[in-house]
Amino acid sequence: MTNPDNTVSFQNLQNFIQQCFEATGMSAHDAGRAAGLMARADLIGQDGHGVFRLPQYIKRIEAGGLNVTPDIHSVEDRKATALVDGDNGLGHLVMSHAAELAIEKAASTGIGWVGARHSNHAGPASLYAMMPLERDMIGIYVAVGSANHLPPWGGTEMLLSTNPIAIAIPSATNPPIVLDMATTVAAYGKVKTAAQRGETMPEGWMIDRQGQPLTDPARASEGFLLPIGGPKGYGLSLVFGILAGTLNGAHFGRDVVDFNADSKTTTNTGHFVIALDIGAFTDPDRFKAGIDEIWTQMKASPLLPGVKEIRLPGERLAQVTAQRTKDGIPIPQPLLEALSKVAEKLNVSPLATGN
Amino acid sequence: MTNPDNTVSFQNLQNFIQQCFEATGMSAHDAGRAAGLMARADLIGQDGHGVFRLPQYIKRIEAGGLNVTPDIHSVEDRKATALVDGDNGLGHLVMSHAAELAIEKAASTGIGWVGARHSNHAGPASLYAMMPLERDMIGIYVAVGSANHLPPWGGTEMLLSTNPIAIAIPSATNPPIVLDMATTVAAYGKVKTAAQRGETMPEGWMIDRQGQPLTDPARASEGFLLPIGGPKGYGLSLVFGILAGTLNGAHFGRDVVDFNADSKTTTNTGHFVIALDIGAFTDPDRFKAGIDEIWTQMKASPLLPGVKEIRLPGERLAQVTAQRTKDGIPIPQPLLEALSKVAEKLNVSPLATGN
Repeated sequence: MTNPDNTVSFQNLQNFIQQCFEATGMSAHDAGRAAGLMARADLIGQDGHGVFRLPQYIKRIEAGGLNVTPDIHSVEDRKATALVDGDNGLGHLVMSHAAELAIEKAASTGIGWVGARHSNHAGPASLYAMMPLERDMIGIYVAVGSANHLPPWGGTEMLLSTNPIAIAIPSATNPPIVLDMATTVAAYGKVKTAAQRGETMPEGWMIDRQGQPLTDPARASEGFLLPIGGPKGYGLSLVFGILAGTLNGAHFGRDVVDFNADSKTTTNTGHFVIALDIGAFTDPDRFKAGIDEIWTQMKASPLLPGVKEIRLPGERLAQVTAQRTKDGIPIPQPLLEALSKVAEKLNVSPLATGN
Repeated sequence: MTNPDNTVSFQNLQNFIQQCFEATGMSAHDAGRAAGLMARADLIGQDGHGVFRLPQYIKRIEAGGLNVTPDIHSVEDRKATALVDGDNGLGHLVMSHAAELAIEKAASTGIGWVGARHSNHAGPASLYAMMPLERDMIGIYVAVGSANHLPPWGGTEMLLSTNPIAIAIPSATNPPIVLDMATTVAAYGKVKTAAQRGETMPEGWMIDRQGQPLTDPARASEGFLLPIGGPKGYGLSLVFGILAGTLNGAHFGRDVVDFNADSKTTTNTGHFVIALDIGAFTDPDRFKAGIDEIWTQMKASPLLPGVKEIRLPGERLAQVTAQRTKDGIPIPQPLLEALSKVAEKLNVSPLATGN
């Protein structure tokens, strides 16, 4: 299905992204770190949140909307909590810093909850929720989405974003359980993909301003995403937005900047990340064996007619990661062309594809 | 609509429940505390989780399935976390203890996350999420539900419960935002209510074992509740169950005891409660003013056709609480009769109704 000429190794992808960032004036350290996280987003199958975003980030840097030499630092600090000011740096740098701080606090107190403000789009939520895993910790990450796509339940003013949550839980012999979900039935990226493919959306993804089902993705701008469970998903989006945004002094509600439409205005994106030390509750090996038992129980459930197998959150992520580690990361032709333009503009070597 | 003879004051309701519990051998202190929380559940409008449950609790106590003199104590303790063993006591006693401990830890470290095992049904989630509010803290509560009502997505074995979450956030002049939701489209109590009233359920609440919509609540035992957002709600139920159950050494998955069908077997119910100190992130008054601004923004949104107003989570709770504080708590006739039987059996004075 994929043209092998259009695959790229993790290392080559990271190197390419790093060179692009360095060409904008970012330090080698920061550029390497951000590039590793972006390439990892592609490696784990989050195609819409990896190198796909590079042209947009570069555009924002060139427009003066993103600080390539941020001073990321804590403005509040308690034993188990902190508030980090990202100084308008790349979200990847801010949130990997925040996750490390949360892990450090969890090792000392059992839990670390670190919020961030003056940050930016940080890629997929699961990246940061998974960081605590290798320390036998559970990770939780929530963000204010980078554009508003839904109104409060019953309304028509888009005041809320898809505000995603990710929760990562380690197991002993199975992949970690990694839930990474928007609080809407469909993420906006799925609407854009349907539009590109000329497909019709199922009822339940979007409604228009009359409250009627909207199934033509080309008309997406005339409607809103629907939250999961109706008022429940609205409630989740609202409280997650407050915890990730308002509590941290970051934008939420009417203040949110649509980073797709505006590359210049500071987004003041808010997020938070939690590391929870399993050892503060039980023996980590015993816990991880318990998660294996849960995998076994769920997988063994009899199936509804037409269903092939029960899936657990994180299962596809692990499969894609293993496959792409072995075979390389596929880069669609239009993206490859967009990255060539970026490379040319920044005067760096183009992305090296092929195995 | 309500017969005024069937209303009861908060104080009379608490006194009645306390007398019932004392008659089972519970200490006056514990009985008063549990009774206050149960009466409060009714005061805030959570009718299915207040005194409605008393006959069931008494039945469980008499069957030997609930310990009326529990030694509730921490088995793990770190600076910002603890694991409480409820010694098979009433969930209300275990989780109010846990919430107080979480608040104490948050005051010292910024956050407290306290898990519990060997607990029982604790009434509405919002009770415990709201406890931190008066200390200018945000509260979060999650529980493993007390009976399994849904399979993993695509399966037919009921391994998961509605595992609810509650999040409470204070405001300056508006009611607190209190989200209290099951991870299913409808809570099982709504199905039971529809059955009692002989109503048809809307499609989307339940499916049968062939995956077809189930709309006759009398057939509820032939099907399953549907999670919000399909696989997303399944994922939330799964990870909440792990965090509230498995992490604490409490039952989850196949182990969960249906406390409606079985009054004797120890439930080993798991929950956790988080207190997050707003002052660890920002000035609490500034934060609460920000929540007022969010109320204003949401309320001001233009409306979809046919919608009367935007509601915020916690709005109805505040309205019902104010009304019932003034007018008393309505007790439906069948419940009043059930409570009379409990009073007679325990040889305590019947519930004093009327204003």
